[in-house]
Amino acid sequence: MANPKGVHIMTNITIFGSGNMATAINGVLSAGGASVDHISSSDTDSTVIGDIVVLAVPHPALREITSRYGDQLAGKIVVDITNPLDFETFDSLVVPAGSSAAAELADQLPSSRVIKAFNTTFASTLGAQSVGPHKTTVLVAGDDEEAKSALIDAIKAGGLDAVDAGSLSRATELEALGFLQVTLAAANKIEWTGGFALVR
Amino acid sequence: MANPKGVHIMTNITIFGSGNMATAINGVLSAGGASVDHISSSDTDSTVIGDIVVLAVPHPALREITSRYGDQLAGKIVVDITNPLDFETFDSLVVPAGSSAAAELADQLPSSRVIKAFNTTFASTLGAQSVGPHKTTVLVAGDDEEAKSALIDAIKAGGLDAVDAGSLSRATELEALGFLQVTLAAANKIEWTGGFALVR
Repeated sequence: MANPKGVHIMTNITIFGSGNMATAINGVLSAGGASVDHISSSDTDSTVIGDIVVLAVPHPALREITSRYGDQLAGKIVVDITNPLDFETFDSLVVPAGSSAAAELADQLPSSRVIKAFNTTFASTLGAQSVGPHKTTVLVAGDDEEAKSALIDAIKAGGLDAVDAGSLSRATELEALGFLQVTLAAANKIEWTGGFALVR
Repeated sequence: MANPKGVHIMTNITIFGSGNMATAINGVLSAGGASVDHISSSDTDSTVIGDIVVLAVPHPALREITSRYGDQLAGKIVVDITNPLDFETFDSLVVPAGSSAAAELADQLPSSRVIKAFNTTFASTLGAQSVGPHKTTVLVAGDDEEAKSALIDAIKAGGLDAVDAGSLSRATELEALGFLQVTLAAANKIEWTGGFALVR
C-alpha cells in the first residue's frame, strides 16, 4: 500500500486458519513484503491486527468467526476464499443458487469490505506460483475498488498474477469455477497441482 | 464411432448455425474425419442427417429450432454450446439461477440426448487448437455416457482434448465459467484468443 504521497507502507495482513491454503496464502503475501500474523481456530479472543484479513478456513467455519470477531472486522478488508461444496454429495453447493458464500459473508459483515479471492487456485499452485507453464492467477471479485486494488497489489508483490473479475456478484461464478475444478480433481480428471490457468 | 465388431463407421454430424463458432466446430470435427453438414437459420424444413447435432447458434435461437426440428431430433445426440448471457447488462444469465440453457433444452427435447460442450472455448482457440501453450480442452457435460463418449471421441479425433465434466447438471457451472470468461474478455482483462486453459 502506498499513501497519497507515494511512500510505501507495509501492509498488515491477518490470516485465519492454519491449513494448506492458509500456509500457501501466507507464503504469497509474506513474499510480497506484507507483515502477516495468524489466528487459529483455538484462538477465541485474539486481536485482529491486519488491515486485510484472509479467512482461510473451510466454509462451515465462517459463521463462528463472524459472530466472534465481527465487531473487530468492521472497516477491514475481509477476504473469503471458500468453496462451499456439499462434501457429502460433491454434486452441489450449500449456498442458494445464484448467491455465494461471499455474498452471505457480506450480509453477516455489513461494515466490512468483503472480497472473494483464492477459491479458484489450488494450494499447490499458490506455492509453485504456476499452473503448468503459467504464472498462477488469482481471481478477485468485490464491490470496493480500493479494497480489491490493495489485495491485488499484495498478491502481485508476492510474485503471482491477480485479475479483477468484477463485482462481488461475480463470486457466484468464481464459486462455480472453484466447484467445477474441485470435482474434476476429485474425479482424477486433473491433478491437484493443475486446474484452470488463465491465459491473458 | 465403432460398431460392436470394432469396424470404424464415419460419424455424421449436423451443425446448425453459420457463425464463427459453427465454422470453428466444423473445422475440428471435419479434421477428425466426421462427415459434417450444415443447416442455417434460413433453412426452415431441412432434413437433419447427423447422429450428432450441434446447435451452434445464439441462445435465443434455440427455441425456434426445438419447435421446428424437435421431432427430427428425437433419439439424436444434441449439443448445446450456448452462453445464455443477458447481453444488455453483461451482468447475469437469462436462465434461472441453478438451472442452465442445457437443462432447459433437455426439457424441450425430452427424447434427445442433450450434451453441453464448446461453451467454455472461444472460437479462435478451437481454430488454433490451443490456448496459449496448451492444447484446447473442450469440457463436456451430460447424462448419457455413450453420447458423451461419442462427442469426446469426435473432438479428440479432430486434434483437441476433451474432458467429461460430469452430469448435465454441471452445465450450470460450465455456463458460469463461460459467462465469467466472456466478461473478462469484454472488459479487456483477457484476449478473445485466450481464456481458461485446463492444466491436467
